[in-house]
Amino acid sequence: MNRKQLIDQIKLKKSFLCVGLDTDLAKIPPHLLQTDDPVFEFNKRVIDATVQYAVAYKPNIAFYEMLGPSGWESLKKTLDYIPENIFTIADAKRGDIGNTSGYYAKAFYNTYNFDSITLAPYMGSDSIKPFMQDDKWAIVLGLTSNDGAMDFQKLELEGGSLLFEEVIRKSATWGSTENMMYVVGATRAEMLGQIRKIIPDHFLLIPGVGAQGGSLKEVCKYGLNRDIGLLINSSRGIIYTDNGVDFEKHVSNAAKDLQLQMKHILEQRNLI
Amino acid sequence: MNRKQLIDQIKLKKSFLCVGLDTDLAKIPPHLLQTDDPVFEFNKRVIDATVQYAVAYKPNIAFYEMLGPSGWESLKKTLDYIPENIFTIADAKRGDIGNTSGYYAKAFYNTYNFDSITLAPYMGSDSIKPFMQDDKWAIVLGLTSNDGAMDFQKLELEGGSLLFEEVIRKSATWGSTENMMYVVGATRAEMLGQIRKIIPDHFLLIPGVGAQGGSLKEVCKYGLNRDIGLLINSSRGIIYTDNGVDFEKHVSNAAKDLQLQMKHILEQRNLI
Repeated sequence: MNRKQLIDQIKLKKSFLCVGLDTDLAKIPPHLLQTDDPVFEFNKRVIDATVQYAVAYKPNIAFYEMLGPSGWESLKKTLDYIPENIFTIADAKRGDIGNTSGYYAKAFYNTYNFDSITLAPYMGSDSIKPFMQDDKWAIVLGLTSNDGAMDFQKLELEGGSLLFEEVIRKSATWGSTENMMYVVGATRAEMLGQIRKIIPDHFLLIPGVGAQGGSLKEVCKYGLNRDIGLLINSSRGIIYTDNGVDFEKHVSNAAKDLQLQMKHILEQRNLI
Repeated sequence: MNRKQLIDQIKLKKSFLCVGLDTDLAKIPPHLLQTDDPVFEFNKRVIDATVQYAVAYKPNIAFYEMLGPSGWESLKKTLDYIPENIFTIADAKRGDIGNTSGYYAKAFYNTYNFDSITLAPYMGSDSIKPFMQDDKWAIVLGLTSNDGAMDFQKLELEGGSLLFEEVIRKSATWGSTENMMYVVGATRAEMLGQIRKIIPDHFLLIPGVGAQGGSLKEVCKYGLNRDIGLLINSSRGIIYTDNGVDFEKHVSNAAKDLQLQMKHILEQRNLI
């Protein structure tokens, strides 16, 4: 999916919601455990319940990898089920030497048909560039929302900038706003303004609204740009709101609630 | 496998050779393509041909992931086939928020029974600690041998140290020499001396001897410690030396050749 198609979808649905498919057998409604493929059955129902409110889905790959080969079967079925006009993100945090990164790109883009993948930047340019392909996106970790983000991302460099700023600044020269996005944690909303000075036009993927404590309003205040430029992810706050036989209703309501807040913000800012 | 067991194996075999299982259907001997599981059949033959010379095997996970679910089946069979007294490394470069890293640990340690996994440090402590478990090892990227290593790893920090030095220094406080190793590229042999000042006792995993241009002698000069403390990986230089029907002979000879060089160095340094 290219940038224009993504923006069109956002404007059409009045939503920049990404639903995180962190599908965990220990947390899904118990009645689904009797089906042949509980992971896929859960995802299918979550997709059905949220597809009118979401513009993107983001499976967290660890949850599938943990299950062995069958987890990847469930992932493949999930990707096949997601409609073409929805943006898909492999939340995989990959990155290796160029040759190997090319194989990871092949895995996620060809084998599973994802539009994009999250990437760790430590190994530099040749670890990131193989993921920039026609209508395919490298989503590079900028500033994350976990405790460990303080350990290295905020180290001060000779000259005064912080590591995450230099990571964003330098890596942005390797691609364009058409094939790169950045992960910025929502618990760091005040840093978004600073990041927007470096990359005013890139899309940002914001995990951590909801369960991880980030505020939608704060994120939008600092993060929205003239093309909207945000994908805001919610996982647990949507998919695990209920685990009864009619859990879909609750899932749908949780997604709708976020979408309505997004619509309101977009209207206030005259972006739709 | 714990540190003592690893060192015992190294002394027994007079070898610190790790064989990289970067198994690529486009490169394996064509006669194996007719078997039910060419990836596993190739790995099995490589293991048989090298097991007396190697103390570790390191599948590059991208090569398996690229093949879809069946690639993970081949990987699982490979891990089941590797004898218990051999150290196994998932070269996966994973790393995510603590909760998700825990799931990756479960994937590689429980589902596939690896002893260790390579990790990208950008997300900090909670992304690394879940991989430190009894007899299981976190192998953190220190200084890599690819071109992109220059982009961030060698950035100078306020105070004068380089990023990779700070990554090693700080992360070493999160674990011990019993559950942490570091990846250091062989093309940076002169930097090994510097790294040994920070972590004199940790094991280092050195990729890039052979095909990537690193010299075994140089690496040993700077990298060996009193417990040997090195695992040196060779992938293409061993597994793709020939692709005829008797390729195993050539694979075996390539491994033996490296093992003999290692034995010679260990004897010269009075380490065995």
